[in-house]
Amino acid sequence: MLGRRGLGAAQCAWRGSWADPVRAVSTKALSRRSTIRDARLLDSGSRVAVGGWVKSVRKHKSVSFVNVNDGSCLGELQITLPAEETQEAAVQSLGAKLSDITVGSSVYAEGELREVPGGKHKRLELHPSTLEVLGECDIQKYPLQKKYHSLEFLRENLHLRARTNTFGAVTRVRNALSQGLHSYFQKNDFLHLHSPILTSNDCEGAGEMFRIAKMDGKDEEFFGTPTYLTVSGQLHGEMYACALSKVYTFGPTFRAENSNTTRHLAEFWMVEPEMAFAGLEECVASAQGAVQSSVAHALDTCSEDIAFFNKNYDKQIAERLERVVEKDFARLTYTEAIGVLQKAVAESKGKVSFEKKPEWGMDLQTEHERFLAEKYVGGPVFVTDYPADIKAFYMRKNAPDEQDRETVAGMDLLVPKIGELVGGSVREERFEVLEKKMRHLGLLPEGDLDEDSIAASGGDLDWYLDLRRFGSVPHAGWGLGFERLVLFATGMDNIRDVIPLPRFPGQCKH
Amino acid sequence: MLGRRGLGAAQCAWRGSWADPVRAVSTKALSRRSTIRDARLLDSGSRVAVGGWVKSVRKHKSVSFVNVNDGSCLGELQITLPAEETQEAAVQSLGAKLSDITVGSSVYAEGELREVPGGKHKRLELHPSTLEVLGECDIQKYPLQKKYHSLEFLRENLHLRARTNTFGAVTRVRNALSQGLHSYFQKNDFLHLHSPILTSNDCEGAGEMFRIAKMDGKDEEFFGTPTYLTVSGQLHGEMYACALSKVYTFGPTFRAENSNTTRHLAEFWMVEPEMAFAGLEECVASAQGAVQSSVAHALDTCSEDIAFFNKNYDKQIAERLERVVEKDFARLTYTEAIGVLQKAVAESKGKVSFEKKPEWGMDLQTEHERFLAEKYVGGPVFVTDYPADIKAFYMRKNAPDEQDRETVAGMDLLVPKIGELVGGSVREERFEVLEKKMRHLGLLPEGDLDEDSIAASGGDLDWYLDLRRFGSVPHAGWGLGFERLVLFATGMDNIRDVIPLPRFPGQCKH
Repeated sequence: MLGRRGLGAAQCAWRGSWADPVRAVSTKALSRRSTIRDARLLDSGSRVAVGGWVKSVRKHKSVSFVNVNDGSCLGELQITLPAEETQEAAVQSLGAKLSDITVGSSVYAEGELREVPGGKHKRLELHPSTLEVLGECDIQKYPLQKKYHSLEFLRENLHLRARTNTFGAVTRVRNALSQGLHSYFQKNDFLHLHSPILTSNDCEGAGEMFRIAKMDGKDEEFFGTPTYLTVSGQLHGEMYACALSKVYTFGPTFRAENSNTTRHLAEFWMVEPEMAFAGLEECVASAQGAVQSSVAHALDTCSEDIAFFNKNYDKQIAERLERVVEKDFARLTYTEAIGVLQKAVAESKGKVSFEKKPEWGMDLQTEHERFLAEKYVGGPVFVTDYPADIKAFYMRKNAPDEQDRETVAGMDLLVPKIGELVGGSVREERFEVLEKKMRHLGLLPEGDLDEDSIAASGGDLDWYLDLRRFGSVPHAGWGLGFERLVLFATGMDNIRDVIPLPRFPGQCKH
Repeated sequence: MLGRRGLGAAQCAWRGSWADPVRAVSTKALSRRSTIRDARLLDSGSRVAVGGWVKSVRKHKSVSFVNVNDGSCLGELQITLPAEETQEAAVQSLGAKLSDITVGSSVYAEGELREVPGGKHKRLELHPSTLEVLGECDIQKYPLQKKYHSLEFLRENLHLRARTNTFGAVTRVRNALSQGLHSYFQKNDFLHLHSPILTSNDCEGAGEMFRIAKMDGKDEEFFGTPTYLTVSGQLHGEMYACALSKVYTFGPTFRAENSNTTRHLAEFWMVEPEMAFAGLEECVASAQGAVQSSVAHALDTCSEDIAFFNKNYDKQIAERLERVVEKDFARLTYTEAIGVLQKAVAESKGKVSFEKKPEWGMDLQTEHERFLAEKYVGGPVFVTDYPADIKAFYMRKNAPDEQDRETVAGMDLLVPKIGELVGGSVREERFEVLEKKMRHLGLLPEGDLDEDSIAASGGDLDWYLDLRRFGSVPHAGWGLGFERLVLFATGMDNIRDVIPLPRFPGQCKH
């Protein structure tokens, strides 16, 4: 019998067979247990060992069915307990007590896979020769004993929610989306850049940054300067792109915003590629490529999970994802987009209206973004060339348009259900233009950039100007809020449900 | 002519060809420029466009050579400028001024690849039909104008150091090691778990944790409880492994230690897999598999970089890495290791000595670890079953040995040059044993675990006990300090040189 004691025994046997104390690693161990996903793909008659948690128990007079899941897939493996006269004795002969086999308990089983008789689709069940309850579960105390729980209830039981179908599926899809992104970047010559969490650069609004506390009992900063948690890896991405051409960051970023909504987290993951020798075209094409690669990998490896979301959370999710992968994304300029919105209102005879009236110069609101993606295009759409006044200082200005309005070479990717999924731009690579802008915004110390005034300015961004001083290159990049992609791909509604341990005002348990 | 203006022109042309404002993404853009790595693999006679930074300029009377690198590989592409009577005029006709082509400037070139005449090895050079200086570089001011700089000097110029051969190579090898780890875990059914940075659990020594400052101007915690930066994702890994079987975290972790050494950082990356239904054998086998997969991927994709490190930093690095991939790692118990060390001292007639005398019960020091890996085994070696007293509370106790000494089912992987690379263990899965230990160590509130006392205890670890209360499973995991792996694979000596932006006491610039 394997199981807990079996593991120890195997190790001892291995140990005894060597005279010299140095042994090689036994690499056989990992192959002993099959995942339930793999077991379900085997042929009838195969012998297999599995471990997992009991999802349901149906006890009948002559036969009982125990459904087990191990997280490797959404599906369960049915263990069929023998039909003998005294079932309790039969189960005991396998190594377990029937009363210990409850929802939530963990079991280890070995046996033979056989086809379930009489089913429409081929389905295998396990006839065990060994069955061991590894960990019991008191169903009187177990918070998840019932089959269905509200998402709210599960948010209160974060440490157990991964044991439910929904959160198992979210975790697998999240993993697949993440790997699909890595694949895209690795295939396209981007280097993964582990940009730092801790930073002294505070250029995107101090109020929204978490700050590291001073050292206990002393009025001293650990790093000598005020230190914050990063809000974006972009500037560090630019640092490396301006040396190695193509890099991407993929890690947590932070906002100390007091927002209690279904769209905001204090800690969330961003992927931020940055490319040298690139402009708006590369920005747009790589954002499409990365999103498509990510979604395709989820469709390829998590079809069962996506069917589950389609059935239980959003009836259009499967079709929407297929469409993302098949077609090139649409494209509009901001100016065209405003025209489309205004025309839609004017021609709809009151059927289309927005809380905020579409006018050139305004920032697009979620209602506008969703209208463009859902109603006008019916899929993902890039909006490019936004007014300069509503965008960040580092975006590169276009030449003024026919009406002498100033825009920047920036783009947002809008998708149905979510609105903005990606935001990016060409970066201002001209030293003089950037320096003037930064000085105007107070991001540089006043006066000449001598060493004393730089040191006095706190957040020292002179290094960022150095990237333009020495061998500057046209470069561009974008950022994708990874949780938004998970929302988009699962059909879940609340951002707190698509990250393992959500952090928001008042909540940082565990 | 392409280059900066070219990008804009292409975009405009695309725009004009659509009557309706909605267009599809142009995916042609990314293919326009070749990486220098790819260009070097083309055939003579191929036409190509490249961008990069000038590494060296050799101006001769009739011909000049400009070497360019774009970070896609260590190697450079030589651009050969035409041998015409007035070279200045010839270069101008290509689009550039000869005097602007200096070390550090960035260029864009199109032209034909031709074989360099007379070389022993086949080597291509670019004969340009277009040459544009995108960003000039004043060599009087550029900190990197000279060819060689000390690593210390480059640490003072972090934002530019990726432009040097050494740090380009470090970044590429780091990327490859990271992807090799992901590949291993994805192939072996581990789900990537994005465990949080922010945590209220403070169980591994409060003095070493960074704390988030209270909200500005108020005496209030953003999250309601004292909040820290994580020192390890292990507990969160266990949370998810006890639901989905196999997970791994790969992200930054933090230590507020006042250590100014070549081995310590305040922010460093850890990979931490956690497996349910697993014991010490799975722990050891997966650590070997992951390290081998990681190193193999670096050898496969960065051979030029590793040859560079072998030549310039550590003459044994290439051979050491090959050996890691080829052979199973060796294995010793702690008790055997102490015996080996004692015997080595006793039999060496004074040639082997340690600052700290090897005795059963002590923690192994780096001098012992390196002796075992370098002298005794000559490669990576797992040491298992350490004394219980020197290891963490969550490690699972073995049965006492023949001499009634208590050990835990833990393992460390020791490697030449570094010492400990990986540390792991089976986790204590028995509720009663773990609860007693945690209470003894003050990790749980005193008295009964009613809700009030839990709330009062601050760092609430009752959830960790829940994993054992409900369907507990034997499980195991390990942690690898990723920067140590990069040191091991590059032969670099200082941990500050193998992470993009090192953070240590007094240093958090950028």
